[in-house]
Amino acid sequence: MAAEMGRMPFFYNTEGRLVQVDYALAAVGRGSTTLGLRTKDFAVLASQVKPTRPLLEPAEKVYVVDEHVGATGSGYIGDVTTLVDEVRVTAQRHRLAYDVPIDMGTLSRTLAEHLHSFTMYAVRPFGASIILAGADELGIQLVQVDPSGTTFKGSGFAIGQHADEALDVVHKGYRPNLTVEEALALASRAIEDVNGGKSEIEFGIVRGDTKRFERMPLENAAA
Amino acid sequence: MAAEMGRMPFFYNTEGRLVQVDYALAAVGRGSTTLGLRTKDFAVLASQVKPTRPLLEPAEKVYVVDEHVGATGSGYIGDVTTLVDEVRVTAQRHRLAYDVPIDMGTLSRTLAEHLHSFTMYAVRPFGASIILAGADELGIQLVQVDPSGTTFKGSGFAIGQHADEALDVVHKGYRPNLTVEEALALASRAIEDVNGGKSEIEFGIVRGDTKRFERMPLENAAA
Amino acid sequence: MAAEMGRMPFFYNTEGRLVQVDYALAAVGRGSTTLGLRTKDFAVLASQVKPTRPLLEPAEKVYVVDEHVGATGSGYIGDVTTLVDEVRVTAQRHRLAYDVPIDMGTLSRTLAEHLHSFTMYAVRPFGASIILAGADELGIQLVQVDPSGTTFKGSGFAIGQHADEALDVVHKGYRPNLTVEEALALASRAIEDVNGGKSEIEFGIVRGDTKRFERMPLENAAA
Amino acid sequence: MAAEMGRMPFFYNTEGRLVQVDYALAAVGRGSTTLGLRTKDFAVLASQVKPTRPLLEPAEKVYVVDEHVGATGSGYIGDVTTLVDEVRVTAQRHRLAYDVPIDMGTLSRTLAEHLHSFTMYAVRPFGASIILAGADELGIQLVQVDPSGTTFKGSGFAIGQHADEALDVVHKGYRPNLTVEEALALASRAIEDVNGGKSEIEFGIVRGDTKRFERMPLENAAA
Amino acid sequence: MAAEMGRMPFFYNTEGRLVQVDYALAAVGRGSTTLGLRTKDFAVLASQVKPTRPLLEPAEKVYVVDEHVGATGSGYIGDVTTLVDEVRVTAQRHRLAYDVPIDMGTLSRTLAEHLHSFTMYAVRPFGASIILAGADELGIQLVQVDPSGTTFKGSGFAIGQHADEALDVVHKGYRPNLTVEEALALASRAIEDVNGGKSEIEFGIVRGDTKRFERMPLENAAA
Amino acid sequence: MAAEMGRMPFFYNTEGRLVQVDYALAAVGRGSTTLGLRTKDFAVLASQVKPTRPLLEPAEKVYVVDEHVGATGSGYIGDVTTLVDEVRVTAQRHRLAYDVPIDMGTLSRTLAEHLHSFTMYAVRPFGASIILAGADELGIQLVQVDPSGTTFKGSGFAIGQHADEALDVVHKGYRPNLTVEEALALASRAIEDVNGGKSEIEFGIVRGDTKRFERMPLENAAA
Amino acid sequence: MAAEMGRMPFFYNTEGRLVQVDYALAAVGRGSTTLGLRTKDFAVLASQVKPTRPLLEPAEKVYVVDEHVGATGSGYIGDVTTLVDEVRVTAQRHRLAYDVPIDMGTLSRTLAEHLHSFTMYAVRPFGASIILAGADELGIQLVQVDPSGTTFKGSGFAIGQHADEALDVVHKGYRPNLTVEEALALASRAIEDVNGGKSEIEFGIVRGDTKRFERMPLENAAA
Repeated sequence: MAAEMGRMPFFYNTEGRLVQVDYALAAVGRGSTTLGLRTKDFAVLASQVKPTRPLLEPAEKVYVVDEHVGATGSGYIGDVTTLVDEVRVTAQRHRLAYDVPIDMGTLSRTLAEHLHSFTMYAVRPFGASIILAGADELGIQLVQVDPSGTTFKGSGFAIGQHADEALDVVHKGYRPNLTVEEALALASRAIEDVNGGKSEIEFGIVRGDTKRFERMPLENAAA
Repeated sequence: MAAEMGRMPFFYNTEGRLVQVDYALAAVGRGSTTLGLRTKDFAVLASQVKPTRPLLEPAEKVYVVDEHVGATGSGYIGDVTTLVDEVRVTAQRHRLAYDVPIDMGTLSRTLAEHLHSFTMYAVRPFGASIILAGADELGIQLVQVDPSGTTFKGSGFAIGQHADEALDVVHKGYRPNLTVEEALALASRAIEDVNGGKSEIEFGIVRGDTKRFERMPLENAAA
Repeated sequence: MAAEMGRMPFFYNTEGRLVQVDYALAAVGRGSTTLGLRTKDFAVLASQVKPTRPLLEPAEKVYVVDEHVGATGSGYIGDVTTLVDEVRVTAQRHRLAYDVPIDMGTLSRTLAEHLHSFTMYAVRPFGASIILAGADELGIQLVQVDPSGTTFKGSGFAIGQHADEALDVVHKGYRPNLTVEEALALASRAIEDVNGGKSEIEFGIVRGDTKRFERMPLENAAA
Repeated sequence: MAAEMGRMPFFYNTEGRLVQVDYALAAVGRGSTTLGLRTKDFAVLASQVKPTRPLLEPAEKVYVVDEHVGATGSGYIGDVTTLVDEVRVTAQRHRLAYDVPIDMGTLSRTLAEHLHSFTMYAVRPFGASIILAGADELGIQLVQVDPSGTTFKGSGFAIGQHADEALDVVHKGYRPNLTVEEALALASRAIEDVNGGKSEIEFGIVRGDTKRFERMPLENAAA
Repeated sequence: MAAEMGRMPFFYNTEGRLVQVDYALAAVGRGSTTLGLRTKDFAVLASQVKPTRPLLEPAEKVYVVDEHVGATGSGYIGDVTTLVDEVRVTAQRHRLAYDVPIDMGTLSRTLAEHLHSFTMYAVRPFGASIILAGADELGIQLVQVDPSGTTFKGSGFAIGQHADEALDVVHKGYRPNLTVEEALALASRAIEDVNGGKSEIEFGIVRGDTKRFERMPLENAAA
Repeated sequence: MAAEMGRMPFFYNTEGRLVQVDYALAAVGRGSTTLGLRTKDFAVLASQVKPTRPLLEPAEKVYVVDEHVGATGSGYIGDVTTLVDEVRVTAQRHRLAYDVPIDMGTLSRTLAEHLHSFTMYAVRPFGASIILAGADELGIQLVQVDPSGTTFKGSGFAIGQHADEALDVVHKGYRPNLTVEEALALASRAIEDVNGGKSEIEFGIVRGDTKRFERMPLENAAA
Repeated sequence: MAAEMGRMPFFYNTEGRLVQVDYALAAVGRGSTTLGLRTKDFAVLASQVKPTRPLLEPAEKVYVVDEHVGATGSGYIGDVTTLVDEVRVTAQRHRLAYDVPIDMGTLSRTLAEHLHSFTMYAVRPFGASIILAGADELGIQLVQVDPSGTTFKGSGFAIGQHADEALDVVHKGYRPNLTVEEALALASRAIEDVNGGKSEIEFGIVRGDTKRFERMPLENAAA
C-alpha cells in the first residue's frame, strides 16, 4: 500500500482521486476533535486540548482573527497556525483598503483559494481544515474550509479525530434556540463522549448583538 | 493497475491517451449529476444537491457569472469554484474593456484555453467540467467545457455521476418547444431517476426576453 | 508494454525514436478521419463529424484562419483548437506588420516551429496534426503539419482514423482536373468508405480565382 | 524499509503523515540531551556537551540571541546554528525597526514560520528543534519550536537523546518555587541520569529582575 | 533493453557514454541516405528522396543557407529544418554585422556549439546530423556536424540509412579531379546501390568559380 | 546497497540521517591524511602529499588565505580548492569593507554557512572538510568545518584517510608547550605512522608573534 | 550494472564517490591518446589522430589558445572544443582587461572552476580532460585539468586511451635536458607503442625563448 502510494505522488489516480489531497485529509483526521456550532444569535468554537506532557502549557486552539471573526483548526499545527496567519492578514488588508470589517464570504473565499492553489502548484496541500466563526451584515456565520479548498457553510461542524461521531452527538442535541450555555455544554459533551471522558476544551464565541469574537478561558468541562 | 499508472504521470500512454486527462474526467464522473437544457427561448441549469450531513447548508451549485450568464459544474468542488471565479473575472474584464456584455463564444473559448493550458504546462489538469448558459446576440446558448479544454455546444448536457443515463432521460423528454416548467420538470426527473428518487436540486435559468440569468430557490422536486 | 513506456517519458529510446512523439501521433490516429485535396484551381478540406450524443451540436471541424486560408485537424480537440488559434494569430500579425496576406510557406513554417519546440522544451508534444489549405502568390497550396513539426506539401492528405485507407480511396479517384463537385464527392466517399457508411462531413474550400477560403454547410453526404 | 522510504520523499503517506518531517524529528532525537526549565523568576537552558575527541574544544551549545533572550537546540549542528543565526537577525531587525527588544511571541512565531516554510517549499525540513528562553513584558518565557513549525510554551522541555526520560526526571523534581541553584542541579541530574553518569553540561540563564540572558561557564556537574 | 534505457535518461552510463547522444545518432541512422562530395572546384550535396505516399510532394532535402552555402541533413525532419533555420539566421546575422559573407569555419562552429549545448542543458539532443557545403576565402569546404556537436571536415560524407556502405561506394569511385557530372553520377550510384535501385535524389552544388550554391531539380538518377 | 541508496537521493532516511551528507563525509575520508595542531603560540597545518605519478608536481595542499590565515583540506580536490577560493574572497571582502583583517570567527562562520546551504538548496553537499589556522585578536585559532556546516574549534584535528588513528598519535604526543619543531615532528609522525612510512608532507604555520601564515617548503619528513 | 547506475544519477554513492564524475573520466579514457611533455625550455603537446574514414580530414587535436598558450584534450570532441573555446575567451578577456598575456595559473584556475561548477550545478560534468602548455613569467608550464576540476602541474601527462601505459613510456624516456627533437620522438614512441604501431600524430610546441605556441604539421611519425 505504502509502495503504491509512493509511485503516484501528486496526480490523479485511476479513479480520478487526488491522492495527496486525500492523505492531507487523513492528517486532519488525526488532529484534535474540534467543533463549530451556530444559532442565529451566536456561534461557538470548541477544540479539545489534548492531554500534554507535564510542564507544558496547552497550545492555543482558538484564535482571534479580527474583532468580529474567530478561527479554530485541526491537523498539522504548523499548517493550522500558518493558515490562521493568512486569514488574519486578509482581514487586516480589507480593513486597510476599505475601512470596514471583512465579510465572511470574502474571508472564507480567500482562504479557500489559498488552500486550493496548493493542490495545483505546490509541493503538497496543507494538512489542516479550518473553521471560521464570524458576525457580518448577513448575521452569524460558520464556515469550514478543507485542504482541497472546498468550503462548507452550516450550523454544526466537526473536524479532527472522531469527527463523525462528535457531529452525531451535536446533531442529536442541536436546537435552533439553544442558549450559549446549552451550546457550550453540547460541544463539551460531544468532544468528551468521543474521546472517552473529561477533556480540557478551549472555547471561543461570537455574538450577534456585540459582533465580537472572544476566546474563552480554558475550563475542565465537567457536568 | 494503480502501480502502472504511477509510472506515467503526465504523458501520453502507448495508445496516445493523456492519462491524467482521462483520470481528471473520472473525477468529474464522481461529482453531482448536473444538467443543462436549452430551447431557443431559455436555458436551464440543474444540479443535484447531494444529501449532506445534518446542520450543513447545501453548497451552491449554480453560479451567476454575469447578468446574462450562469454556470454550473461537476467534479472537485475547489476546482469548480476556482474555474467559476476565472469565468467571472473574464466577463468583468470584457465589460471594463469594451463596455458591453461578453459574448458566449469568447467566454467559453477563454475558459477552454485556461483548461487546456493545464494539460500542457501544469502539475495536473483541472478535475472539473463546467456548463455555461447565457444569452447574447446569437440567442440562448449552452456550452460544456471539459478538463482537456474541449468545448461542446448543444441543447442538452449532463455531467457528473450517471451522466449518460441522465442524458438519456433528457433526450427522450426533450422537445424544442418545452416550456420553462416542463424543462425544469424534465431536468428534475432525469436527476432523480438516475439517483434513486427524490433529490434536492438547485436550478438556474436564463431567458431570451430578459437576457438575464437567475438562480432559483432550492426546492424539493416532487411530482 | 505500458510499464516500459512509463520509464522513458520524453527521451529517445534505444532505436533513436522519440517515443512521446510517436504516442502523440497515436493520438492523432484516434481522431476523426480528415482529408485535404488540392487541384491547381482549388483545395478542399473535409472532416468527418463523428456521430455525437443527442442534443449536441456537431463540433466545428473546419476553421477559417484568414480570408485566404483555412484549416482542419485531427487528434485532441483542445490541441487542435489551440493550434488553430496560434495559426490565426500568426496570420493577423503578418497583416498588421506587412499589410499583406501571409503566404502559405511562412504560415506553415511558423506552425511547424511551434509544434517542434514542444518536442524539445515542453512537458508533452501536441496530440494533433493540422492540414492548411490556402491561396497565395504561388497558387493553391495544401500543407500538413505533424506533432514532430514535420511539414508535408501535396495534393492529397488524410489524417485521423483509417487515414491510410482513406488516402488510398482518394488516390484512386484523384485526377488533376477534378471539378469542385467531384472533389467533394471523392472526399465524401473516402471518409464514408472507411467509416462504414453515411457520415456527417464538414467541408471547406479555397478557390484560386477568388483567393477566399469558405466553410461549407454540413451536409449528409449521400450518393 | 529503506526502499519504501525512498519512494515517498516529501509527501504525505497514506496515513497523512509528512514522512520527511517525521524523519527530521528522528534527527533531533539523535542530538544531545537538551533541557529548558522555567519558574516565574528565571529560566534555565542546559545542554549536554557530548564527550568529544581529545584536543577538541566543546562546541557551543547555548547561544545568546539578544540581551534578553537565549537559545539552545538539538539535532544537526549546522541546522541548529543556522536557525540561531536566523533568530539573532530577527531580534536585531526588531530593535532597528522599533527601538525596543523583541517580545518572545514575535520571535518564536517568526522562527516557527521559517521552519514551517521548509516543510512546504524546500528540499528538506530542518533537522533541529530549538528552545528559546527570554524575558519580556509578559515575564519569563520558555518556548520550544520543532521542525514542523509547531511551537510549545511551558515550564519544562527536553529534546535530543532520551528526551522523554529526561523530562520525566525534570517533572518529578520540578517545583514552581525552585531556586536557580536547585534548577541547575535538577537539570544536571536529568541529563546525567539518562546519559549514564557525569556529563559536561553547558548552561544559560535569564532572570526576571535583570531581564538579561547569560551563558554560564561549563562545569562538570557533580554532586 | 528498453527498460534499462529508461533508467538512465540523460547521463553517462558506466562506460562513460552519453546514451541519449548515442540514441540521437540512431535517429540519424534512420534518416534518408544523404551524401556530400567535394573536390577543390566544387562540392555536391545529394539526398535520397524516400518514396512517399501518392499525391505528396517530395520534401525539400537540400537547402540554400546563403548565396555561397548550402545544407542537407538526415534524422528527424523537424530537427533538420530547425537546425537549417538556425544556420540561415547565423549567416544573415554575419552579413548584417560585418557586411561580408560568413566563412565556413564560423558557420560550422556556431552550429556545433548549438548542437553541443543541447547535450548539456536541454531535455534532449537534436536527432539530426547536418552537412554544409560552401565556398569562402579558403576555397570549397564540406563539413558534417553531429548531434554531439562534433565537426568533421573532408571530401566525402554519408549520413542516414546505410551511410557506411554508401561512403564505401563513394570512396571507391572518388578521384580528386572528378567532374561535376561524374560526382553527381557517383553520388547517385552510392545512394541507389545501398537502397536497392533507382531513387529520387535531390542535389545541390556550390562551385568555386561562382561561389554560389544552387539546388538542382529533382531527377530520377538513371544510368 | 548501491541500489537502495539510489532511491533516497537527498533526503533524510528513516533514522533521520541526511545520507548525502554522510556520503560526502565518506568522500572526505578518502582524501589525504591532513592535520592541524595548535598551541597558544602557533598553529601548524600538515597534509600528506600522496605519492603521485612520475613527472607530476605534487599538488598544493596548504593554502594562504590571507596574511594571517591559512587553510588545508581533504576530500575532492576540486571541492577543496573551490572552498579555499570562497574563503579567500571572504577575507578580502572583509578587508575592503572594514579595513582590518577578518577575525577567525567570522571567517569560519561564513564558510560553515556556505557548506550548510549546499545541504539545503543544492544538488549535492561539498565533498570536502577544511581546516583553518589563523591569528586574530583572540590569539591563535584552529577550526575545522565539515560538509554539513558543522564547525569545530580545538588544538588538534585530523581529516582524510586514517584520520582517527592519526589523531590518536597526535593526542598522545601533544603538549601545550610544544615547540614549533616538536609540533612539526609530531604531525609528521602521525601522518607517516598511519600511512605506512615516509611521506611527502606539506606544512603551513601561523605564529602569534608575527600574526603571519606561511607555507613551508615540502620536505621528506625523515628522522 | 547499467541498471544500478541508472538509479544514482548525480549524487555520491555510498562510498562517497561522485559517480557521474567517475563516468565522465571513463569518457576521457575512451579518447585519443594525448600527451604533454615539459622541460624548462619548452613544452610539447602530442595527440594521436585516430585512423579515420576515407575522404575525412583529420580533426584538429592541438589548439592555439593565445600567442603563448596551446591546448589539447581527450574525451567527447564536442566537450573538448567547447572547453577550448572557454579557455580562448578567458585569455582574450584578460588581454582586454589588463593589456598583458594571461598567466598560466589564472588560466588553468578559471578552466578548473568552470569544470568544477558542472559537477555541482549542471545536468552532467564535462566528458573531457584538457592539457594546457604555455609560457609566462614563471617559465614553461604544463597543466592538466580533469572533469572534476582537479588541476595537475608537471612535466609529463597522458590522457585518453592507454594513458597509463603511455605515461610509463614517457617516464622511462624522460630527461630534463631533452631536446625538442628528442621530446617529439619520445611522445611519438609513447603513443605508437600503446596503440600498436605507426600513428598519425598532431603536435604543438611552446618555447621559452620565443614565448610562442605553435601547432606543428601532421606527420607520420616513423623511425
